[in-house]
Amino acid sequence: MTKIMAINSGSSSLKFKLFEMPEEHVLVEGSFERIGFKNANFSYKHEGTKASRELEILNHEQAVNLLLEVLINEKMIASFDEIEGVGHRISHGGTYYADATLIDEVVEERIGELGMLSPLHNPVNLIGIRSFKKVLPNTKQVAIFDTSYHHTIPEKNYMYALPYKYYEKYGIRRYGFHGPSHQYVAEESAKLNPKGSKTITCHIGSGASVSAILNGQSINSSMGFTPLAGLVMGTRTGDLDPQILPFIQEQENLTPQEMKDVMNKESGLLGLSGISSDYRDIEKAADEGDERAQLAIDVFVHQVVHYIGAYAADLNGLDTLVFTAGVGEHSSRVRTNITDYLTYLGVEIDEEKNKKDELFIETGNSRVKVLVIPTDEEVIIARDVMRIGKL
Amino acid sequence: MTKIMAINSGSSSLKFKLFEMPEEHVLVEGSFERIGFKNANFSYKHEGTKASRELEILNHEQAVNLLLEVLINEKMIASFDEIEGVGHRISHGGTYYADATLIDEVVEERIGELGMLSPLHNPVNLIGIRSFKKVLPNTKQVAIFDTSYHHTIPEKNYMYALPYKYYEKYGIRRYGFHGPSHQYVAEESAKLNPKGSKTITCHIGSGASVSAILNGQSINSSMGFTPLAGLVMGTRTGDLDPQILPFIQEQENLTPQEMKDVMNKESGLLGLSGISSDYRDIEKAADEGDERAQLAIDVFVHQVVHYIGAYAADLNGLDTLVFTAGVGEHSSRVRTNITDYLTYLGVEIDEEKNKKDELFIETGNSRVKVLVIPTDEEVIIARDVMRIGKL
Repeated sequence: MTKIMAINSGSSSLKFKLFEMPEEHVLVEGSFERIGFKNANFSYKHEGTKASRELEILNHEQAVNLLLEVLINEKMIASFDEIEGVGHRISHGGTYYADATLIDEVVEERIGELGMLSPLHNPVNLIGIRSFKKVLPNTKQVAIFDTSYHHTIPEKNYMYALPYKYYEKYGIRRYGFHGPSHQYVAEESAKLNPKGSKTITCHIGSGASVSAILNGQSINSSMGFTPLAGLVMGTRTGDLDPQILPFIQEQENLTPQEMKDVMNKESGLLGLSGISSDYRDIEKAADEGDERAQLAIDVFVHQVVHYIGAYAADLNGLDTLVFTAGVGEHSSRVRTNITDYLTYLGVEIDEEKNKKDELFIETGNSRVKVLVIPTDEEVIIARDVMRIGKL
Repeated sequence: MTKIMAINSGSSSLKFKLFEMPEEHVLVEGSFERIGFKNANFSYKHEGTKASRELEILNHEQAVNLLLEVLINEKMIASFDEIEGVGHRISHGGTYYADATLIDEVVEERIGELGMLSPLHNPVNLIGIRSFKKVLPNTKQVAIFDTSYHHTIPEKNYMYALPYKYYEKYGIRRYGFHGPSHQYVAEESAKLNPKGSKTITCHIGSGASVSAILNGQSINSSMGFTPLAGLVMGTRTGDLDPQILPFIQEQENLTPQEMKDVMNKESGLLGLSGISSDYRDIEKAADEGDERAQLAIDVFVHQVVHYIGAYAADLNGLDTLVFTAGVGEHSSRVRTNITDYLTYLGVEIDEEKNKKDELFIETGNSRVKVLVIPTDEEVIIARDVMRIGKL
């Protein structure tokens, strides 16, 4: 029995799960939210007991130290030596990493450099790595990249039609993100429906992406050079006519950085609805008759349908359609609205099963299996630590 | 019998056809190329005789005057009064024009204002209008907008997920272009295959766009706010992760205008291949083993497939697939490469028919009719002049 810590950091959050492997038993799990704020929150669950507290947490290093302190103080582990491996989800692996990798100084340096491509995430991911290294200098640490699972995307699907020099100079290409999530649900669905070689996975949460999976390998994914592209998200635009950017910049006199902020923080469901970035709030407002909330939903559904259609063409057909992440797992209405467009592919869902968020929600007549699978990025991280760390 | 002049201006070109309507008989047709250059070319065809000359043509006004002079001097018409209507293809009609319209001073002013959205085309379109007005002050002139045919696109398909204020303030939305071409081939295919209510039209030339047509109405089109978006084109990027723009701007210190130039003039097939913006040159280089030329073709084909797949989902199925414009009409290989991905939709083409660019190229077993229809934007212009001008 090997204890493995899985760390999943966002720009102002840190989620963790301490696993007993290979049983994949979760010993402790929890999260820090609002890191950098006076009213940060730290909550965790351990053997049926839950705890939560509000306190000031200045940065990710402090969060890691607090986590380690609690593990000892609450006797969840007897000593740090028990943790034999730590896995970190890393946002951007660039062209370097087609798989998870043991972290050494070169890897750390590259993760830092790739912060140019993922400025909100790679730097905090690196802080997580270094914080664990200080306390557990001899423990194997493994980097699990959001981009690695998509390294099987073929060149014709990842190249942008820009001057080629930008690809050579800066690595500007489609990378695809949410790798551990797409991988997890693709692997689960392959176990549950082994005949399905053509799979589309829809990770729909506050971030959202769709992937085309052929025989277990990602061949396309809707996020691109960065996690801005593809679907409409909570506050992100998704795809745009690129010429809109210089137009707005000239009209409103915005710098490139200000334009990035508009597209990442003020757009998406929030920008369209003017109400919220949270899909639940938007659905509620739409139910109360708010037209722009309804518009935001319609645009969102249409975008998901757009990518499912495009990826069905990439795959030349569809055997399995998977929904996961917050909205995908819990909004039966979104799943209905999306699948209503897909009868031409032979998709037919059973509304009773759909309403209950069942695992299989298609009818007996459906030519396509339709699954709702709760995602588990942390278990992918823990498995990769075992495999890469040879534990 | 009514003589109608159809004018189709590009940034450095002007095509014309003088029709006898309603017979749709072409009396004279021709074009000016390289307007603004010392070695501009003026060529025309009249009753079986062809003429072509090289000369300096400074601007579109000079081209129009030369055209009118030749019409009289070569006795193609006896007097200007014979021309009862002139139709101008106009690039951008914004949210104003859901149909062609008689040109008056308000219309002229708006076409000028909309130059903000189409700086390369609307201003020269306006010069064409004013040049004809000077010589034929009493002749009805009609504006046929590239965007009008797409005014039936529903809101969920035309809204971008930006802050809503940009839609209100600047009309930032998807418009769709190549309207007269999509309209022409959609109408022709509806005549030839009246049962087909779900149609996808692929206008693939040096500019390229795909449209989804439901019961004769455009419900989506791949170009967006401007003609940059959608498919990879000769020198245009098509779709990009929007975050690539501020990234390149910051790295290379480019102004918004410089960024526009990169995306419009240095990208697309040219940027990917480093060889040419002309599909024929690229195919030749690929045949000779050039890897980046092959990459450019693969990316291009993949993008067309992407949109056909997405629009099949918009339409929830597909009855008719139409290819038109330079590459679409003449490259059987492109059509083969594209349709190879579409067997899941029931598309099956007959290679013999395909190689001969026949009108119908599908097999007897194909569930989808596949047509190759030479486009005719000018006849749409002439028909609209008759209808709107009540001639």
